Amino acid sequence: MPLNKTLRIVVIGAGGVASALAPALDALDGVEVVQIFSRSLDRAISLATRLANAQAIDSLSDTAAADLYLIAVKDDAIADVVSALPPVDQESVVAHTSGSVGIDVLSISGCRTGVFYPLQTFSPGREVKVGSIPFFIEGCDAVTTGFLKQLAFRMSGRVYDADGDTRRLMHVAAVFACNFTNHLWAIAADLLAVRGIPFDVLSPLLEETLHKAFTASPSEGQTGPARRGDTRVMDAHRKMLDDCQARIYDLISQSIMQRYDTLRSDKDTCGGV
Amino acid sequence: MPLNKTLRIVVIGAGGVASALAPALDALDGVEVVQIFSRSLDRAISLATRLANAQAIDSLSDTAAADLYLIAVKDDAIADVVSALPPVDQESVVAHTSGSVGIDVLSISGCRTGVFYPLQTFSPGREVKVGSIPFFIEGCDAVTTGFLKQLAFRMSGRVYDADGDTRRLMHVAAVFACNFTNHLWAIAADLLAVRGIPFDVLSPLLEETLHKAFTASPSEGQTGPARRGDTRVMDAHRKMLDDCQARIYDLISQSIMQRYDTLRSDKDTCGGV
Repeated sequence: MPLNKTLRIVVIGAGGVASALAPALDALDGVEVVQIFSRSLDRAISLATRLANAQAIDSLSDTAAADLYLIAVKDDAIADVVSALPPVDQESVVAHTSGSVGIDVLSISGCRTGVFYPLQTFSPGREVKVGSIPFFIEGCDAVTTGFLKQLAFRMSGRVYDADGDTRRLMHVAAVFACNFTNHLWAIAADLLAVRGIPFDVLSPLLEETLHKAFTASPSEGQTGPARRGDTRVMDAHRKMLDDCQARIYDLISQSIMQRYDTLRSDKDTCGGV
Repeated sequence: MPLNKTLRIVVIGAGGVASALAPALDALDGVEVVQIFSRSLDRAISLATRLANAQAIDSLSDTAAADLYLIAVKDDAIADVVSALPPVDQESVVAHTSGSVGIDVLSISGCRTGVFYPLQTFSPGREVKVGSIPFFIEGCDAVTTGFLKQLAFRMSGRVYDADGDTRRLMHVAAVFACNFTNHLWAIAADLLAVRGIPFDVLSPLLEETLHKAFTASPSEGQTGPARRGDTRVMDAHRKMLDDCQARIYDLISQSIMQRYDTLRSDKDTCGGV
């Protein structure tokens, strides 16, 4: 793309990812988000009005010519979007923003393809600093990869190459690190609620645990009864839990004891009970 | 305690908790930490030198007269400390700082007793803002509870009543919320390391997940394939995991599906497989 030419982007989607990326892209020098597509015209308009000069559309047949078509819709809807796109210029890039969908879903578009995956969770109404988001990029060829990486670099200092296998592995890592930990926080909140204690009493402890995990490593920061192999405390804890909570307690405790070699039983080392 | 009298405190212990609390207490107007005890005189000296006018001792028989004896040692060592303490004034308070030990361990001291439990993790060399720590207080009687709560309030705005059962419940909640989540982060770090990706790519996502959990609630903030009941993604994830990781993946996913009613199998609702 010559430097003196405005880069035209069509953003397909108006959900969390699109709402974070479209304004950040539109704010870059020499970049213009020209259209926002959503099946809901209201949502498309709502996002388009946050941009300098973008048109809201609710039909993919109205898609304008662009250098980049950025598909930021739910995983299951990507293939439908691709097949509904009118033919695009051979030089144009069609990219999706999903961590769990392969680049091959885009191949029917007959143009340059790529993946532009921001590793962040997006919620309506919540501003996220795009500058701190790690982007994971894949392109159908080196030129396309370079083009998408350069675009990501202009928004964020953290840009990585990642093929489909790497993205899938990252996604499962994120499930452990975020979705599962969030569920454990929900269980902790349940336990505290029994005594009328608000969940946020855990916030200083959690902030500190998170800080330790990122300054050293989670392994080095591990503490607690399972880390110490303190079966007396673990037995007492188990009595305070319901069956479902106790199963999780046992399995993760055993997994910790196995990692740090504090396991003191004949149970198998995976934590099976 | 009359207001014009200096409150004298002996801190027993020189580990993480003592090193955080002793300076914070000593900095209060009208409060003086007069002694630091540690079995290692070097450690006692090292902490005492951070205080205005504290003596380092390594024998409990050298304990001075004080209004409060604050026992901040490992759980298993509290009883030993109590029995080694010379007789203390009937009006003095002996309190420990443990979340998992009952107040009754102190009863042999024949004085006023209490628990002064800061819900935070302390590491050597890492400053912790005492002002944001929630304190959980129990006293042998209302006067003692009031005395300890007032002292905690002067350091932190977050002070709660908590008897032994409540503290134990909070401790198990903290194990779920911090120890177990940290272990899941360690697993995530393992998964990323396979592809040479540093764990800290997850930091923006984790910060955001944590923020959501505390602004709304963990339950409301839950996302991910199990929350959506997306068995296709879950099956793909499972193939990337070793047996131990897969067991944790299955159990927590099932627990999430049960909570949000996205369970689509005949398996029992606790996540047993």
